[in-house]
Amino acid sequence: MNTHKTYRSALILGAKPLHRLTAAVGVASLGLFAGQAHAQESVEERLSALEQQLAEVEPHAKGEQGFSFNTYARSGLLLNSDGKSAPGGPYLTPAGSVGGAVGRLGNEPDTYLEAILNYKTVADNGTKAHYRLMIADATTSSNDWTADDGALNVRQAYVQFSNLASFTGIFEDASIWAGKRFDRDLDFDIHWLDSDIVFLGGTGAGIYDVTFSESVTSNFSFYGRSFLDFPSDPTTTDGTSDTDNLILTANNYFGNVEWLISGMSAADNDERIVNGVMEAADTGVHTMLAYHGDSFFGLSDGSFKVALLHGQGLGAEVKNIGADGNLHEDAASTRIAAYGTTRLGDSWRIAPAIMAETSKDRYVEGDEYQWLTFNTRLANELGANFEMQYEASWQVMDLQTEGYEGRGDVDGDYARFTIAPTFKPQVGGFWNRPEIRVFATYSTWDDELNRYDGGDALGQEDFGGSQWTFGTQMEVWF
Amino acid sequence: MNTHKTYRSALILGAKPLHRLTAAVGVASLGLFAGQAHAQESVEERLSALEQQLAEVEPHAKGEQGFSFNTYARSGLLLNSDGKSAPGGPYLTPAGSVGGAVGRLGNEPDTYLEAILNYKTVADNGTKAHYRLMIADATTSSNDWTADDGALNVRQAYVQFSNLASFTGIFEDASIWAGKRFDRDLDFDIHWLDSDIVFLGGTGAGIYDVTFSESVTSNFSFYGRSFLDFPSDPTTTDGTSDTDNLILTANNYFGNVEWLISGMSAADNDERIVNGVMEAADTGVHTMLAYHGDSFFGLSDGSFKVALLHGQGLGAEVKNIGADGNLHEDAASTRIAAYGTTRLGDSWRIAPAIMAETSKDRYVEGDEYQWLTFNTRLANELGANFEMQYEASWQVMDLQTEGYEGRGDVDGDYARFTIAPTFKPQVGGFWNRPEIRVFATYSTWDDELNRYDGGDALGQEDFGGSQWTFGTQMEVWF
Amino acid sequence: MNTHKTYRSALILGAKPLHRLTAAVGVASLGLFAGQAHAQESVEERLSALEQQLAEVEPHAKGEQGFSFNTYARSGLLLNSDGKSAPGGPYLTPAGSVGGAVGRLGNEPDTYLEAILNYKTVADNGTKAHYRLMIADATTSSNDWTADDGALNVRQAYVQFSNLASFTGIFEDASIWAGKRFDRDLDFDIHWLDSDIVFLGGTGAGIYDVTFSESVTSNFSFYGRSFLDFPSDPTTTDGTSDTDNLILTANNYFGNVEWLISGMSAADNDERIVNGVMEAADTGVHTMLAYHGDSFFGLSDGSFKVALLHGQGLGAEVKNIGADGNLHEDAASTRIAAYGTTRLGDSWRIAPAIMAETSKDRYVEGDEYQWLTFNTRLANELGANFEMQYEASWQVMDLQTEGYEGRGDVDGDYARFTIAPTFKPQVGGFWNRPEIRVFATYSTWDDELNRYDGGDALGQEDFGGSQWTFGTQMEVWF
Repeated sequence: MNTHKTYRSALILGAKPLHRLTAAVGVASLGLFAGQAHAQESVEERLSALEQQLAEVEPHAKGEQGFSFNTYARSGLLLNSDGKSAPGGPYLTPAGSVGGAVGRLGNEPDTYLEAILNYKTVADNGTKAHYRLMIADATTSSNDWTADDGALNVRQAYVQFSNLASFTGIFEDASIWAGKRFDRDLDFDIHWLDSDIVFLGGTGAGIYDVTFSESVTSNFSFYGRSFLDFPSDPTTTDGTSDTDNLILTANNYFGNVEWLISGMSAADNDERIVNGVMEAADTGVHTMLAYHGDSFFGLSDGSFKVALLHGQGLGAEVKNIGADGNLHEDAASTRIAAYGTTRLGDSWRIAPAIMAETSKDRYVEGDEYQWLTFNTRLANELGANFEMQYEASWQVMDLQTEGYEGRGDVDGDYARFTIAPTFKPQVGGFWNRPEIRVFATYSTWDDELNRYDGGDALGQEDFGGSQWTFGTQMEVWF
Repeated sequence: MNTHKTYRSALILGAKPLHRLTAAVGVASLGLFAGQAHAQESVEERLSALEQQLAEVEPHAKGEQGFSFNTYARSGLLLNSDGKSAPGGPYLTPAGSVGGAVGRLGNEPDTYLEAILNYKTVADNGTKAHYRLMIADATTSSNDWTADDGALNVRQAYVQFSNLASFTGIFEDASIWAGKRFDRDLDFDIHWLDSDIVFLGGTGAGIYDVTFSESVTSNFSFYGRSFLDFPSDPTTTDGTSDTDNLILTANNYFGNVEWLISGMSAADNDERIVNGVMEAADTGVHTMLAYHGDSFFGLSDGSFKVALLHGQGLGAEVKNIGADGNLHEDAASTRIAAYGTTRLGDSWRIAPAIMAETSKDRYVEGDEYQWLTFNTRLANELGANFEMQYEASWQVMDLQTEGYEGRGDVDGDYARFTIAPTFKPQVGGFWNRPEIRVFATYSTWDDELNRYDGGDALGQEDFGGSQWTFGTQMEVWF
Repeated sequence: MNTHKTYRSALILGAKPLHRLTAAVGVASLGLFAGQAHAQESVEERLSALEQQLAEVEPHAKGEQGFSFNTYARSGLLLNSDGKSAPGGPYLTPAGSVGGAVGRLGNEPDTYLEAILNYKTVADNGTKAHYRLMIADATTSSNDWTADDGALNVRQAYVQFSNLASFTGIFEDASIWAGKRFDRDLDFDIHWLDSDIVFLGGTGAGIYDVTFSESVTSNFSFYGRSFLDFPSDPTTTDGTSDTDNLILTANNYFGNVEWLISGMSAADNDERIVNGVMEAADTGVHTMLAYHGDSFFGLSDGSFKVALLHGQGLGAEVKNIGADGNLHEDAASTRIAAYGTTRLGDSWRIAPAIMAETSKDRYVEGDEYQWLTFNTRLANELGANFEMQYEASWQVMDLQTEGYEGRGDVDGDYARFTIAPTFKPQVGGFWNRPEIRVFATYSTWDDELNRYDGGDALGQEDFGGSQWTFGTQMEVWF
């Protein structure tokens, strides 16, 4: 394989001689022996040299130019009352298989992390370039050597240009990008459910911030995603095919209102075999109408977001746009999502959230999936470094699968409640991280939910009915 | 999978406008035209601005705040006299299977590395937070593309808080942490054997430096480790189970004396099948008494450490606490370890070490493992960048396995001697790195040792009796 | 496994108290209250302190000391006219299997990246040390989670010393290194073909820049490469063996002329079974004569390089020295490579290239491989951030394989032409990166080429005859 290519000449960083420094030191030495008038002059020169030199150094030290590092990470233990790892994760219920998350506090069994390496440059003409590499890993092993259990992989590798010297008019503030990435704007979430409201990622190119007026801007993008190794030969189980799902989006802002419209096409995906027949979608449409509020639903200080999403065909996976190739050609999904954050007095914060979806003909003609999740995170600030956090979740679901992937029909509800004493460097908001927490959780659900799937968490040995779980976790982002 | 979560708002680093700099430059310009009194004033302001600005930049440049990078790495060739890779590693003898290391100089066939990415912050209230990510790899392939042979994985991902604003009394100097990590203190070694004296790693949480008095401090920690995919069905070889080994430790310091006590429990590990029967331990205790000396055994300048370790049940793996789930319920191990470093005249350094262990009923009732290793590293400093290094190892062992894992009983000894011309940036101590070395090694052992195990190095084709090996290696840490 | 070893004491960076800063601030405060004479003195001291402090900080911020980050990366989509991923890559033709690359513009289907983490130190005696770690990944999946499809691995981990305090005479300017690496000098390429002219990588040690006179310098190196898991048992297909290919090189410069000579030996590689018989080479020689021009072939401003390479036995893979263990003991290859870059007027740049090889008895006695590639990259600079790029490639080949690896004989030619509108932060040269491009490509070839190999791109379903392909890509290095 001849894939490598390094550029030594380009790698010789910092080859620029330190003329400025040398000059400054020379002037400084001179100043010691010169008369007061000359010394005054040299002080001026030395100050100017220092100021200029420091102005060049500072952006590097602060990550505005050159290298910088960002992270999301969590790691901890989730144990049942026997002291063994418990199944967990926000998607552990039957509804989780179609995106119905429940609360994450005290419900995460894994070490998951994203290491983001940035490199930023500014050209002489003022054009800025930003290269971003994200390496991520996920494992449920608690061991310190996870070569067999880990999943290190590259999730992002893209370049973005901004402040382009030659861009004018509606493009004056625009940025362009290409590579593999999470979309800049189509990646916002209800944190407490570990569920994006919408997520778009893949490999492609696009333009951000085409500015039609002060309050009207648009982003346009073209993403490809790979549908890999799906069954496509009706006579055997071995025959597999690949294709690409190509997604075109226009994401438009009118003040606080966001309207996203996407179309997608995956050539020959209709040859995919799902549940024994070939009726998979090869095209799809997706749209989202969202409002980004700067108060708590107009009631108090805080924030809120609401979104209404609808998709058809390949667009019927309304959260992860274009990521599910098993969707039926007649699939149709509608989802609402909303959350807000505000303060209740000086030391309490509250963040209620709701998410619900209905979808039909999703994977098999005649199937129907309906679920709704209520969630509330509550925090009581008790000191400079300590707060009590509480989270309650309730989910109701009615899933009629038509036997897709051997899943049974279920109709029932699930509830969980967590209490988590939490340490953080500085108490003061829902987004302050890192956090170190311990927690205890009680969860309970209808027995019927255990019948959905042999593969999911509910109904596993030692995990039927109702459960106490315990653990500790860190969470960090910067 | 919905594992990702980045926080764009949190990712916008360096958004703070450079007001201070602008101000300083403004004052500077003013100074050029103002009278002397005013100029004097502006010089004062500009100096203060520069000093403040530099005081903010400097910790970022030096890795005290923001990102910093640490490493341990080694990479080299280990060749036999035919010019082919030779088996090697400090654990290549039969005793190595139960922790009996021999010297590492000229005995390492691999590229092993740890890349450590740190990110440090200081909150407004003074609380410090440190996120650490360690990615590691190990391979014996000499090639530059090792996607099939490498083992890249995440060994650490944790957060630690110190200088907590709200901690007082015995907790004033305490640090707390959670995540996946190597314990801060329970990770010290006899470098020349590549053997820790004690090592504790896994996923959990803890507190360091609870200070009872000036000389009495304690650390408390709770770690989980995963016992994965062990056989547990006596009727087939397929049935496997998982459990967690939960380890509680108190690590106490009385001046130079360290006393560690640990208990551990792995629910249902007694269902594990070892050598055909179910007698594996599901609990364990472990203790270590150590002395960290600041002289060479009181005889001369230098350093020394001695440690006595004992463990039972799951604690009978006395070095890697809680890492071996095959241990018998009656297993008992006792180990001593000691080393020191000192100078012999101006240009010679010496570091003798000893490690020995006896264990009974380790994996199978009635087995018995005894081994002892003597090792001495000697260095002769011959220039600013060059020294000759020598290492001699002798190991004697008597291993009665009761047929565990098909291993034969062996009783014999092993010796090796290495000479290694070594380059380093600055000669002057055992811990100065990086080093670039070439080496030649002679090793010899009793033929009987070849019979221990078909899988270990001794007795492999071209590797029986006595051996010359050669090679080159770099070693670095920072 | 006992592979880890971190050195906490070494990890405590930045422990040095900020005495200098404290002193400077103290003096500053004093200055506010002191008389003018004293203030003048304190200004001098404060300036000196700032200058010294900044002189220490600056190399860290600029990557001259401490950590720095380098990258090569590309990522994009390559689609056929049905909107599905097309096969691609510079080595997609039959000649590609023996190194015959065609143009890369609009011909790369993958995300490939190299993340290079450097750490540089300067000892008190002036000796410099540079540790370099390179992690790389390659995947053709467009998805943002590629744990199953990616190939993250470590390609380099080495240490290099320069400015050695004790080196004098012809070694005064020499650097020494050990570890796993790409050779510093034996890694230069024809960028537009994604083909090195020569590449040497592996694990070993060496010395650079032994300076015999102002214009005569030499590098000497010893590299090992692993030949892994090759078939060696004539009675079964299961028996495999390993060996090491050890390569000794002398790379000599006489002004602009470079003469490289290498010998290599792989013990027992003659036991390898290739095409059913054991005639693989176990030794080899390789040589290259190259000229590095600082004009466009003496005709105009620009650059050019020409190289003539020849190898026999294991040296007959003339580009990737010592990397192919299947070569026949009588294998002989000769290759020429040349390219240049220059300007055609103010806004046009051109870079023509040629590469051709003939080899005999390469893998099987009597086989014969001949191919020649012409390539030209042309760029038309149309604005501060925009240029049109064009690339044309023509390749002719005559490959007589004697049935090696089931490949058929082919004789024919291949042509491709790409047009690529390209954005970059600053237009101005062939080496300016990053670039964001879209492209359309037409390629056509003799039907006969489809018969070479069931595994290569040409002749795959939907990829016979002639093709239009389209896509977008970013490319970056720094």
